[in-house]
Amino acid sequence: MARFKLTIEYDGAPFVGWQRQDNGPSVQGAIEAAIKAFSGEEVTVLGAGRTDTGVHARGQVAHFDLEKDSDGDTVRDALNAHLRPQPVSILEAAPVAPEFHARFDATARHYRYLILNRRAPPALERGRVWQVAVALDAQAMHAAAQALVGQHDFTTFRASECQAKSPVKSLDRLDVTREGELIVIEVSARSFLHNQVRSMAGSLKLVGQGKWRGQDLRAALEAKDRTACGPVAPSAGLYLMSVDYQKTEK
Amino acid sequence: MARFKLTIEYDGAPFVGWQRQDNGPSVQGAIEAAIKAFSGEEVTVLGAGRTDTGVHARGQVAHFDLEKDSDGDTVRDALNAHLRPQPVSILEAAPVAPEFHARFDATARHYRYLILNRRAPPALERGRVWQVAVALDAQAMHAAAQALVGQHDFTTFRASECQAKSPVKSLDRLDVTREGELIVIEVSARSFLHNQVRSMAGSLKLVGQGKWRGQDLRAALEAKDRTACGPVAPSAGLYLMSVDYQKTEK
Repeated sequence: MARFKLTIEYDGAPFVGWQRQDNGPSVQGAIEAAIKAFSGEEVTVLGAGRTDTGVHARGQVAHFDLEKDSDGDTVRDALNAHLRPQPVSILEAAPVAPEFHARFDATARHYRYLILNRRAPPALERGRVWQVAVALDAQAMHAAAQALVGQHDFTTFRASECQAKSPVKSLDRLDVTREGELIVIEVSARSFLHNQVRSMAGSLKLVGQGKWRGQDLRAALEAKDRTACGPVAPSAGLYLMSVDYQKTEK
Repeated sequence: MARFKLTIEYDGAPFVGWQRQDNGPSVQGAIEAAIKAFSGEEVTVLGAGRTDTGVHARGQVAHFDLEKDSDGDTVRDALNAHLRPQPVSILEAAPVAPEFHARFDATARHYRYLILNRRAPPALERGRVWQVAVALDAQAMHAAAQALVGQHDFTTFRASECQAKSPVKSLDRLDVTREGELIVIEVSARSFLHNQVRSMAGSLKLVGQGKWRGQDLRAALEAKDRTACGPVAPSAGLYLMSVDYQKTEK
């Protein structure tokens, strides 16, 4: 038996999210079905981040155990063949130590949130961005965002259904930059609360359009009150970019 | 009556191409239907470039005449409302001089061709790139490509059904760069032959994988023979990025 680490890209639109659920197709379920088709084995694939419905990934990480004797390249190519035509792609499959755990061993998770800041609706980026028609000031968003960096009680930016034991998290990075019509929000932390990135993105949008000042964002954080949060940004703009580990390769 | 210039973004996948045809939905037809729904007027929308089935645009340009008294912002927003949910977006609508012609007045057309150069199939970029699994040398592609820049007889890179009077065209730019897993081909000319960009991209791919050397690409050009061309690259990787004019605003 060998444990494999998968690095996965997916379009979140047709899925109920990463996690297997009764109400529709999940990314986890799609990969488990591909493993079964390849090996005949019924396994559980454990992901580093449980992305919500419509959230995308460019570098989700997961692990599973395989009885069948195989190597990384074969596993990657076989799973991709069986995943077709679903928009899930195994970028890499690598054998790892049997104690490697995609979720518990993660030392950092990196997310990106994309806002298409223009009047015209997206044609090529539909379902991949949050379109905001009103002009946003990315510099003001970035400046205000720095108040959220560091260790804080993020109760304001936490979904009511969040199952984390503590609302205290340590945000390592929250950068906002403009690239033409796109506003790119880069967020990094060891771990996040449920809906934290989308909650922060929605509040930063209020700063960008001038409805909130930097001090309003700080006050929202300090309120430790969910009702102080701006409207949660839609899932289509969110991407799990990568997950860091100390050392994973065997 | 006023003439309007439209700047248009679209996903080419669900369309038979820019031009109205009997065998399926076209971008031109979609925009003409939106104009009719907005104004009640039956007009012809003339585009700068007749993109093929599956080819995308980030900056197609077209013009049409409207009897109804309106302004650019109203036309843009109304057409976008009527185009929904089709993946066609009017980025800009601007009143222009009544003699402005999107096709004949164009002084340059800029195309981009995207190759996703990796083993794993695209999930997020599906239908938006040409996936090439074998490693490509972008520097070798760029160096070889320079032989095509300038005025040449491009018969080798011309579809058999091309209706242009002459196969002689002047290529202003053909740059190949690598951005991570993406290989980006930027091409500019006053005008192109039918399938010229995809024919050049397909031949450059042979250079990138080492099947052709620079001299083979030069020999293919000099052969002035369609059969000397490499396999034509798929439409999904091609984007009409922008079209230049001397002066268009009223």
